[in-house]
Amino acid sequence: MSIVVRNPPRADAAVIDGLAALGVATVHEAQGRIGMLAANMRPIFPAHIAGSAVTCQVAPGDNWMIHVAVEQCGPGDILVVAPTSPCEDGFFGDLLGTSVQSRGVRGLVIDAGVRDVAELTAMNFPVWSKTVWAQGTIKETLGHVNTPIVCAGALVEAGDVIVADQDGVVVVRRRDAASVLEKSRAREADEIEKRARFKAGELTLDVFNMREKLAAKGLKYIDYEGY
Amino acid sequence: MSIVVRNPPRADAAVIDGLAALGVATVHEAQGRIGMLAANMRPIFPAHIAGSAVTCQVAPGDNWMIHVAVEQCGPGDILVVAPTSPCEDGFFGDLLGTSVQSRGVRGLVIDAGVRDVAELTAMNFPVWSKTVWAQGTIKETLGHVNTPIVCAGALVEAGDVIVADQDGVVVVRRRDAASVLEKSRAREADEIEKRARFKAGELTLDVFNMREKLAAKGLKYIDYEGY
Amino acid sequence: MSIVVRNPPRADAAVIDGLAALGVATVHEAQGRIGMLAANMRPIFPAHIAGSAVTCQVAPGDNWMIHVAVEQCGPGDILVVAPTSPCEDGFFGDLLGTSVQSRGVRGLVIDAGVRDVAELTAMNFPVWSKTVWAQGTIKETLGHVNTPIVCAGALVEAGDVIVADQDGVVVVRRRDAASVLEKSRAREADEIEKRARFKAGELTLDVFNMREKLAAKGLKYIDYEGY
Amino acid sequence: MSIVVRNPPRADAAVIDGLAALGVATVHEAQGRIGMLAANMRPIFPAHIAGSAVTCQVAPGDNWMIHVAVEQCGPGDILVVAPTSPCEDGFFGDLLGTSVQSRGVRGLVIDAGVRDVAELTAMNFPVWSKTVWAQGTIKETLGHVNTPIVCAGALVEAGDVIVADQDGVVVVRRRDAASVLEKSRAREADEIEKRARFKAGELTLDVFNMREKLAAKGLKYIDYEGY
Amino acid sequence: MSIVVRNPPRADAAVIDGLAALGVATVHEAQGRIGMLAANMRPIFPAHIAGSAVTCQVAPGDNWMIHVAVEQCGPGDILVVAPTSPCEDGFFGDLLGTSVQSRGVRGLVIDAGVRDVAELTAMNFPVWSKTVWAQGTIKETLGHVNTPIVCAGALVEAGDVIVADQDGVVVVRRRDAASVLEKSRAREADEIEKRARFKAGELTLDVFNMREKLAAKGLKYIDYEGY
Amino acid sequence: MSIVVRNPPRADAAVIDGLAALGVATVHEAQGRIGMLAANMRPIFPAHIAGSAVTCQVAPGDNWMIHVAVEQCGPGDILVVAPTSPCEDGFFGDLLGTSVQSRGVRGLVIDAGVRDVAELTAMNFPVWSKTVWAQGTIKETLGHVNTPIVCAGALVEAGDVIVADQDGVVVVRRRDAASVLEKSRAREADEIEKRARFKAGELTLDVFNMREKLAAKGLKYIDYEGY
Repeated sequence: MSIVVRNPPRADAAVIDGLAALGVATVHEAQGRIGMLAANMRPIFPAHIAGSAVTCQVAPGDNWMIHVAVEQCGPGDILVVAPTSPCEDGFFGDLLGTSVQSRGVRGLVIDAGVRDVAELTAMNFPVWSKTVWAQGTIKETLGHVNTPIVCAGALVEAGDVIVADQDGVVVVRRRDAASVLEKSRAREADEIEKRARFKAGELTLDVFNMREKLAAKGLKYIDYEGY
Repeated sequence: MSIVVRNPPRADAAVIDGLAALGVATVHEAQGRIGMLAANMRPIFPAHIAGSAVTCQVAPGDNWMIHVAVEQCGPGDILVVAPTSPCEDGFFGDLLGTSVQSRGVRGLVIDAGVRDVAELTAMNFPVWSKTVWAQGTIKETLGHVNTPIVCAGALVEAGDVIVADQDGVVVVRRRDAASVLEKSRAREADEIEKRARFKAGELTLDVFNMREKLAAKGLKYIDYEGY
Repeated sequence: MSIVVRNPPRADAAVIDGLAALGVATVHEAQGRIGMLAANMRPIFPAHIAGSAVTCQVAPGDNWMIHVAVEQCGPGDILVVAPTSPCEDGFFGDLLGTSVQSRGVRGLVIDAGVRDVAELTAMNFPVWSKTVWAQGTIKETLGHVNTPIVCAGALVEAGDVIVADQDGVVVVRRRDAASVLEKSRAREADEIEKRARFKAGELTLDVFNMREKLAAKGLKYIDYEGY
Repeated sequence: MSIVVRNPPRADAAVIDGLAALGVATVHEAQGRIGMLAANMRPIFPAHIAGSAVTCQVAPGDNWMIHVAVEQCGPGDILVVAPTSPCEDGFFGDLLGTSVQSRGVRGLVIDAGVRDVAELTAMNFPVWSKTVWAQGTIKETLGHVNTPIVCAGALVEAGDVIVADQDGVVVVRRRDAASVLEKSRAREADEIEKRARFKAGELTLDVFNMREKLAAKGLKYIDYEGY
Repeated sequence: MSIVVRNPPRADAAVIDGLAALGVATVHEAQGRIGMLAANMRPIFPAHIAGSAVTCQVAPGDNWMIHVAVEQCGPGDILVVAPTSPCEDGFFGDLLGTSVQSRGVRGLVIDAGVRDVAELTAMNFPVWSKTVWAQGTIKETLGHVNTPIVCAGALVEAGDVIVADQDGVVVVRRRDAASVLEKSRAREADEIEKRARFKAGELTLDVFNMREKLAAKGLKYIDYEGY
Repeated sequence: MSIVVRNPPRADAAVIDGLAALGVATVHEAQGRIGMLAANMRPIFPAHIAGSAVTCQVAPGDNWMIHVAVEQCGPGDILVVAPTSPCEDGFFGDLLGTSVQSRGVRGLVIDAGVRDVAELTAMNFPVWSKTVWAQGTIKETLGHVNTPIVCAGALVEAGDVIVADQDGVVVVRRRDAASVLEKSRAREADEIEKRARFKAGELTLDVFNMREKLAAKGLKYIDYEGY
């Protein structure tokens, strides 16, 4: 059976917007180094967004369910698409981009290909995908919308928060989002202070007190002449 | 035996220029979803061209036949190069780029590496390749010019039309080019009209009358509370 | 045992700066088509640098030794990092970037992932890496600094010259650097002259006297009608 | 925090053994074409098993948590291991194999490398992995045991049924296992009958009544002379 | 439009059987180092066959056209299948294997996945594929039978001769098959004589008179002490 | 300039034979987890050998230097071949295999392709390669024999000891070989004792005293009901 789950709860809009101001690396560290989608999810142009996930499972070479998913998308959402077996086809182009953008969708994350990237760039509609390719798709096979999916190696559920920037894509569980935002802001604040010290020439070895632990593990310094 | 075929017929210049105004995705759909070269053929900078193919078969790590092919190139051509076994070497750089550009060649498509990409970008000479790498090549082994080749998984014959943009590279058989142009323009016109409707908020589900077929296939809508 | 070699000899600064003015393709050809790091070492933004290598061997998923290596870096250096087994994690971000940039380091070459690329780009700190990914690392395992390493398939020793541009990364042995600079300049001068001739329409077939050798190897020209 | 979940419910032993008698392809089809782990999960020798999943999340290059997971394994279990970022290291060898085999574990599924494959083969301990490599691991970083993991692109929870043969690895949700067994047996029975008809020369075109639907979609038969 | 071409001419059965007695490496060299399908086409068990190609173009994730192709297959044929975009799904299993084997088909070459490999091995039905995976396919989209296709990077036409062994798969044009057989046998005979000489300790350097050419190119011998 | 270094010192024959009795995993661990060639170096049949390296650098698609290297090979050697840029061609087949086997060579390690694997298997001549492919090579370009090379990511010098089994290939520096043998034997002895304990049901957690350290790092045990 193919299912479309309507009106799943979204993460809090203020929390999402808070996370959008923070980098993917910071968010991922703040939640304990988890939640990254695979490294091959690359942006079609430099962008930085956050939103609430609408999930969509498709068949390889078939984008029919994306058309179904569009109707479930609203302002502040990010569409997250995964095929049931690996596929590089261009499942999404500027027509679907126009449609979801008109509904307030902030971007697309797809473990497959995307096309019309010149137009999508001109429209300022960001996409993270594993490839860019014009190869077209058909409309024959059903899938699911807003059920849990594995996208690029990460579990994504409807209403999870997606944060995406040039370093990739991270998923934050909806129930954890507020707490992750808080920890991310603390981490960010700490980094600002540290950055100033590093710029002034202090070393991470000293700022983070690594020297003793390194010596205890057996690190030796040798002058080149003695090597 | 190694062969250079001289003066193969080119596609009609007006047809080529017509196709150059259309996207690769549109052209590929218009001819029945065929003709895409593999997804790993990526541009060194954003570009959009069309031209008549001059084909060139080379040995791995050996660009000698490209030098031979240059003489067969003329205004409006695109040089299409494929090695006889997979190779990432930089077969083509700014000197060859200068030479073919002086002959009116519009770009290069190569299922291998390219180098001097900063210079080629400055010259505005577009290249689609599977990699960028400075690794050099030799000049010892013959190949063919203007015989049919398989380039990045697609059959290309001299005089076929190549259309390339940020979504990849598509080949159109010479004999089909005029008809494909016509179908592509019709498709383009239709998309312009559709785009306006999607921008205004209409759904593809309705515009393309998908709802009934989806229901017939078994799609079910469930509210989150009932899921 | 884990070793940090202090104060290895650097290549001559004038030689390094001389090489920085030349392209990777030119330098690699001038030294006999050797020294390229693998083709998957790609820049996070278009850049062109040369510097003296500080080498760093790390464990997969562990960037501790990079912190150790920073202290060994000085003006004009390039940090070259290789993991002991393949890894895509983001070993290096803007904090480490700030730290090494404050010490005069010109860039990073890493056979792994990098993160905070928006910030590193804004800082104008160039990086060549095999991927971009926010996935974080730990600090548990020792490695080496300034010992010989294999990075992206090439042997790199402390004090070797690294030249990196959009075509990739090449290593020049320290003892050969002056001689390679001389040969590279000669090659560059020759190319400038050749480029003018190619721009004027001369063919490489004639400029390099290839026709006789091609015929001797068996190349045949056939008109399309006879094919 | 790192968690070991003790005594999760297992699937029914009779159901597991029932599934062990059926092929991965059959089980995957019977449950609606879902549940396959990625195609790069290959067996170190031809084998066919089923068991109840004990899940284990490890850090890249670090097999410490596998040692923790062993204690949670019992008769009829299959150990399922996934790293938090891609890694090819040999996380598991004949010592761990001896240990889990002594506890009645039926096999290992790991989205990483395995080593000592000659010894594991001699012991008749089957492993499905993405690579075979002797590269060793360390014991520094915690992970989880028996929490839900994504392994080779599929979600696996403790107590799910794993079926693995030469065609790959499939996961069946614990709650669905009995029903999937029933459907798989029906499918198997049907295939036995069909196989006899195909062996006797009947065509799938006729047995499955495809001809009409093919014609309706537009399939045309042309004799070679007319082509 | 989707086309099935009926009764294309086959290569001569005696020529096919002659080629079946020769290795893929020999045949490929004899026809001038051309015709190899890509290196990732691997056999599911050690086998060595030759046959006349029946070609089949399929959609990704859809094996419907293989069912259509079966009817076009006869004794001595090899079924050659290529998808229109890259796919790893298991398009072919033991039921289709039973069906084509009952018609005298000698094997399958598929630029995609295969499944039921234990059963196909037991049946002694050889397959060369890019992967082995149980992931199933659907029956919705048409393609072509016996039209020219590009399979794993090589052009294959109906009636071409396919030779496949543990070294991969080579295609021989039907019109060239008799001549290639002759050249292959000559090469084979020569190799038998050479093999005896090499076994007796003669060097290829001497048997093929390479020493002079090597010296002319600049090869130098240095004793280790002088190195 | 191209160089053949004659008569480099070999490692001690007794040491080599001692290492041949030990697994690659054991040797690699004993020398501090270093020296593994990349995981894609796979054997064409199950084998386990050790020998003294004769190194050979070749051009892509060109096996000429292997013919030169054969003369430098003697009893107990292993030929180690690396191309100057990535290549999958079949550089080595049964004729070269016959030649080197007649000289007492124990096997081949090549970061490229091999062919005639059925014949090489029948001859019991083991090969570790990154692919198997019949695609042929030419004889035009010089390289080096017995100079240091990087093969599959590892530095190999003439006279280093190579150990290869089903887990891959490891290189041991000639000067370290005796010491590594000793450490490997100690490790092997220890593993035999441990294996007996694990077989009897003892846990690595206890045998290696891991429980306290795990708890200190924060590992928590939770019963399923409380999860």
